[in-house]
Amino acid sequence: MGADADTRRVWVIGIGAGDPAWMTLAAARALEAVDVVFVFQKGDDDELAAARRALLPAGVREVVIEDPPRGRGAAAVAEWRARRVALVREAVAAEDGEGAFLAWGDPSLYDGLIDVLREAGLGVRVVPGISAVSALAAQFGIAINRVGGSVLITSGRRLAADGWPDAVGDVVVMLDADLTFRAFPDAEIYWGAYLGTPDELLLSGVVAEVSDEIARVRSAARERKGWMFDTYLLRRVAPG
Amino acid sequence: MGADADTRRVWVIGIGAGDPAWMTLAAARALEAVDVVFVFQKGDDDELAAARRALLPAGVREVVIEDPPRGRGAAAVAEWRARRVALVREAVAAEDGEGAFLAWGDPSLYDGLIDVLREAGLGVRVVPGISAVSALAAQFGIAINRVGGSVLITSGRRLAADGWPDAVGDVVVMLDADLTFRAFPDAEIYWGAYLGTPDELLLSGVVAEVSDEIARVRSAARERKGWMFDTYLLRRVAPG
Ligand SMILES: C[S@@+](CC[C@H](N)C(=O)[O-])C[C@H]1O[C@@H](n2cnc3c(N)ncnc32)[C@H](O)[C@@H]1O
Ligand SMILES: C[S@@+](CC[C@H](N)C(=O)[O-])C[C@H]1O[C@@H](n2cnc3c(N)ncnc32)[C@H](O)[C@@H]1O
Repeated sequence: MGADADTRRVWVIGIGAGDPAWMTLAAARALEAVDVVFVFQKGDDDELAAARRALLPAGVREVVIEDPPRGRGAAAVAEWRARRVALVREAVAAEDGEGAFLAWGDPSLYDGLIDVLREAGLGVRVVPGISAVSALAAQFGIAINRVGGSVLITSGRRLAADGWPDAVGDVVVMLDADLTFRAFPDAEIYWGAYLGTPDELLLSGVVAEVSDEIARVRSAARERKGWMFDTYLLRRVAPG
Repeated sequence: MGADADTRRVWVIGIGAGDPAWMTLAAARALEAVDVVFVFQKGDDDELAAARRALLPAGVREVVIEDPPRGRGAAAVAEWRARRVALVREAVAAEDGEGAFLAWGDPSLYDGLIDVLREAGLGVRVVPGISAVSALAAQFGIAINRVGGSVLITSGRRLAADGWPDAVGDVVVMLDADLTFRAFPDAEIYWGAYLGTPDELLLSGVVAEVSDEIARVRSAARERKGWMFDTYLLRRVAPG
């Protein structure tokens, strides 16, 4: 029997959004120090779970938590979340020693893990990671904001629903399955998929000129690999 | 005589926004591989330049570039930028081998370095870093966005000028000398200064209740250390 889950603290370790070398020294040290690493996994063919696993130091115990299937609609999502909380609580309670969860990219950005752990009654210590936002900017060798300007980080769905705020020059879009950038033909786009991996794809230009190519490259890659992770920056072009 | 600056590529290495262990493995490797590191420095007492220097591996040559003083007003800033471009060009041209510039935090966020290097005619290869945004979230152990919500990253000046967009739940503010959060008494604030350093300060709560304390702690720390680096998250409280 493990210690009581209610009194436990776990690490949440950001491992970076692609390149294994984007892991920080702090993350590497935390991984060396823990006894057990919990890995959420969807089925067998989860390439991200495999990437996470490849980072584990020899000797660390790995506990796979089968990620329950997520239905559609608010009720189904709430049930999925509750199920995850219960699975986490059980998994942590069954283990002794220091435990860690690995988070893709930076744990603070579009990742429900921290909230799930808190709901499970666990304390968290977070090691930050390189987000897909930082990764995108680095691979293009660009700044994400213009001098003194602000940046909105949003999802495809939100961008479609809320629009592009006037005062914001730069928008980074994640979690977009709908090529929402096509609504902004005059903007500049910097599009990156599978950033930091051997499959990395980078395309940029004025949306009107490159959106067909992005759509084509994206759907071919998606078909080939079976999944897609892409992020893009939309930059308002100064009227000239 | 060094190589022609026009044909040179330099590294821009993000070193993370505070804790030296926030450096990535990629950054550590790049630093081991370069021959010379260029460090911008303002006068003798620049604690950040010292922090950067402490990360340099033994044997790497360090070239200090005295950061020219920056005047106020657009013309003075333009002149300062042009002066920096010229200094960079000279410094790089005078050195042979692989060169790198270190950037505090993530090079893509509120850092003019990449633009200066490009203006100097240099190619850049960027290693991403842990930004103050990721650092803030990690130290509080929180997510930076709410489920499916978007996040605005902005400066104090912009927040004051543009306001808080309706559709955005979370705003991260950097570069704020004016305690602009006081304009949003109902919001929740997560305030962090000198994140990831031994001087780290963390305060949070409803703005109306904690803003006086933040102002007091901030000005005392500023006085004690002679400089201040703080970042905060403003979170709109759900109407309840
Ligand atoms: C669930 S979110 C997790 C984000 C992660 N916490 C981070 O900091 O990047 C997944 C989304 O992040 C973006 N993403 C993550 N890794 C990426 C990569 N290597 N290349 C492109 N986009 C990536 C994509 O927009 C993807 O839909
Ligand atoms: C010129 S910007 C550089 C930002 C940097 N490139 C990054 O990624 O964090 C400097 C501002 O970043 C924020 N900042 C940087 N390091 C910080 C730290 N350790 N603690 C709190 N804020 C920090 C502050 O808002 C500061 O005014």
